[in-house]
Amino acid sequence: MSNSHKTGMPPTETEHLPNTAYAVLGLLTFGQELSGYDLKQWADNLRFFYWSPAHSQIYAELRRLEARGLVTSRQVPQTHRPDKRLYRITQAGLAEARHWLERDPIEPPVLKHSVALRLFFGHLTQPERLITILNDYAASLQQSLAELTAVREGLGDGEQFRFPALCGEWGQAYYQAELTMVRRLAKQLAARQQPPQPAPEGPPGGPTPKHGPVPPAGG
Amino acid sequence: MSNSHKTGMPPTETEHLPNTAYAVLGLLTFGQELSGYDLKQWADNLRFFYWSPAHSQIYAELRRLEARGLVTSRQVPQTHRPDKRLYRITQAGLAEARHWLERDPIEPPVLKHSVALRLFFGHLTQPERLITILNDYAASLQQSLAELTAVREGLGDGEQFRFPALCGEWGQAYYQAELTMVRRLAKQLAARQQPPQPAPEGPPGGPTPKHGPVPPAGG
Repeated sequence: MSNSHKTGMPPTETEHLPNTAYAVLGLLTFGQELSGYDLKQWADNLRFFYWSPAHSQIYAELRRLEARGLVTSRQVPQTHRPDKRLYRITQAGLAEARHWLERDPIEPPVLKHSVALRLFFGHLTQPERLITILNDYAASLQQSLAELTAVREGLGDGEQFRFPALCGEWGQAYYQAELTMVRRLAKQLAARQQPPQPAPEGPPGGPTPKHGPVPPAGG
Repeated sequence: MSNSHKTGMPPTETEHLPNTAYAVLGLLTFGQELSGYDLKQWADNLRFFYWSPAHSQIYAELRRLEARGLVTSRQVPQTHRPDKRLYRITQAGLAEARHWLERDPIEPPVLKHSVALRLFFGHLTQPERLITILNDYAASLQQSLAELTAVREGLGDGEQFRFPALCGEWGQAYYQAELTMVRRLAKQLAARQQPPQPAPEGPPGGPTPKHGPVPPAGG
């Protein structure tokens, strides 16, 4: 039993929503009545340092939030498009969003770095391929940085979007640092490039190395 | 029908393995015969920029890899512990790992930043709380940086673990840049700290702001 009844917080079941639900709920705390479509536009902003859920996930979370009384909705007729449903946060929803921010522990950020994972196994391919992978990644980082810079400028310096703006600056710093490092790695690989050595023909069978990336502590 | 039969690559079905399977397969390309336990030790390295799969996931991937002929295993009796099963990569496994590195497109890295997500909704709490969240995160980054620095040193400067070492340096740069930015953000919040304003009592009902973080394009 949690202390939710004493504090007037929403019941325990709402405490186990995924972060995507809180992202959707949080976007509604800026005070607007928004459609799922609007929320997707707003959430695309988040992709720079979080992750932009798919339309289908946003709608699924909205249904769940509504079933728990954290948002309400109304159908709005439109003349040239299908009717749309607009969502608004409730008192309970606002309390739940605040509770989420107060709650510890905060799970650590998750980074699944598909590019670093490939570099880790760089012995399986040629340096040229790794340099291509890194250069392609650098180009996509530059693109992301340009997009995020435009978003940051669009947020302005007012009070209402002060925190999204801070996150935007965080994201800009992240892309910039990543770009610097990726370029340095590509340069290092290019500088060390030697005449290609014959690739091993089968499973490595030479002398067993003494230590792995982390020497196993036992067996 | 892929061209796998012409090239001698493994059949199409193996092309859709998750990255975790490739992480496990890749660790076996360093040439050692490893147990699931050993692999978990090695995989903990990957957690710095990818993610360390749970024991159960490693065993599940090993079973899948073995079913596809990408690894083989043998049971080794032990006197003071339960018997252990050692895994070794096959020719087909090595070909598949190489094929994975050659294949385009490479999916973009995924960052689910639980801390930035909370900062984004900073208007829902007090600056003190946000500063605590950022300081706690900075402490965990320092811890990760120290651990990764030890791992990097342990890898040495030899040829065998050259690529894990480069990834280690990439991770160190990432943690360092993140730490710098998080400290800057905490400082900014502390500097701007003003007398607390009354929190809104319910769903915001004031004048609708003209623009969201991304002004919706329609809908």
